[in-house]
Amino acid sequence: MAIDPANQTALIAVAHALADAARAPTLAHFRQSDLVSDNKDAGGFDPVTVADRNAEKAMRDVLAQMRPDDAILGEEFGATPGTTGLTWVLDPIDGTRGYISGTPTWGVLIAVGDADGPQLGIIDQPFIGERFVGGFGVAEVAGPMGMTDLRCRPARALADATVLTTFPEVGTTEEGRAFHAVAGQARLTRYGMDCYGYALLAAGQVDLVIEAGLNAYDIQAPIAVVAAAGGIVTDWHGGPAHHGGRALAAANAAIHAEAMAILSAQCDA
Amino acid sequence: MAIDPANQTALIAVAHALADAARAPTLAHFRQSDLVSDNKDAGGFDPVTVADRNAEKAMRDVLAQMRPDDAILGEEFGATPGTTGLTWVLDPIDGTRGYISGTPTWGVLIAVGDADGPQLGIIDQPFIGERFVGGFGVAEVAGPMGMTDLRCRPARALADATVLTTFPEVGTTEEGRAFHAVAGQARLTRYGMDCYGYALLAAGQVDLVIEAGLNAYDIQAPIAVVAAAGGIVTDWHGGPAHHGGRALAAANAAIHAEAMAILSAQCDA
Repeated sequence: MAIDPANQTALIAVAHALADAARAPTLAHFRQSDLVSDNKDAGGFDPVTVADRNAEKAMRDVLAQMRPDDAILGEEFGATPGTTGLTWVLDPIDGTRGYISGTPTWGVLIAVGDADGPQLGIIDQPFIGERFVGGFGVAEVAGPMGMTDLRCRPARALADATVLTTFPEVGTTEEGRAFHAVAGQARLTRYGMDCYGYALLAAGQVDLVIEAGLNAYDIQAPIAVVAAAGGIVTDWHGGPAHHGGRALAAANAAIHAEAMAILSAQCDA
Repeated sequence: MAIDPANQTALIAVAHALADAARAPTLAHFRQSDLVSDNKDAGGFDPVTVADRNAEKAMRDVLAQMRPDDAILGEEFGATPGTTGLTWVLDPIDGTRGYISGTPTWGVLIAVGDADGPQLGIIDQPFIGERFVGGFGVAEVAGPMGMTDLRCRPARALADATVLTTFPEVGTTEEGRAFHAVAGQARLTRYGMDCYGYALLAAGQVDLVIEAGLNAYDIQAPIAVVAAAGGIVTDWHGGPAHHGGRALAAANAAIHAEAMAILSAQCDA
């Protein structure tokens, strides 16, 4: 679906308004002793905080005012249908485990797009005060060092590359093995960055971010930000990643191909 | 060695002056495309940057002016003898791998102490603009959310605890196995925080930080900051950790004992 330039500008303004709205509710509980995490999944550990819910409510209030006819997919409150063909995809606190540990690697994820995937994304880190924006011709970060263009780094060999993921198990046993087949050839592997890893990829700091077990709301904003910075995000076999699952985010086509050859040889689609 | 209150106040001011001096040289190269990392150790990967060296030089210049008779131990330029019995221990960029990956988890580490160990420490994160200070009656952090007292969290069972370390291999095979024997009993294990993990422990956000293969300059500032916040840092058998090697940093005596029982059963001293 083509979106005309005036509408693009309006959508960018809405995305910023959403990030602004999430700022106070997310920071209100960050590093506070009253932070209590629920346990959504009895079998695992998926904390949800009051902050998470309040931030999504605040963003939904903004959309009700500014974009009442668009659809919404939010981590906390699910899907709300719309009539425009556009869907806002919201993850109020991506990286809740990082959040409850006090690390500054969680983020507010905001994307807007259509059935073909996200066209605009924001990764906002309210504690640092850093906002990565990509889409509709924009690719920039505003933060402690001012405003900078986002641009993924040029090609280098996997042997010289830095690879990020959030935790060393990655996903299933098979997925973990595939990840480590790539990471074992890289120069440096780092863990624990949550969505901030994709922001660092867009900022030209690392070469690959590889994850599995994602939800659509985890990856849509990163896809838009990385793509706007010249990078590529697909699943591990080159298909679209915006429905979630496995993501291979790469700084350029060369290292994307090199990593995908290894991942796809290790894992069936 | 007892240090009188007036001298303590002076030393705190010097420590802040050192952190201030390191700020510009470390940030000058952070996330810049000209960042080139040397390879100090032909067998491994230990990047050193121009920023690292410039920051230590800047701190040594401050000490030459303000504390010319104290000894210095710095990561980059080694040991400089003194006559006062006090030694400044400097790590201009702790977490150089995090630094070259663009993550905000590296820090400037500054400690001052005597033969018994560090008495005052600073963990400074110049990009976020966050400074953790502990010692001589001070335990505080100044950052994006203002000034807050540092206080380690109260005791909770290891089964409810959060454990941090920088990378999953931790150290030798034996050390890695010992770490994972603790982490396997914890609720949540997170990687990748470098020295920022100790800052989060002092800020009451996590329960344990466990590392191995440390140098004295990696751990002295964290020891002072954590101790000032009510926590405990020892080696894995309860001995002093300020010479480097293995560190067990705990929020309180109960979880320190619980973790140490596991670590010491897995590893000889």
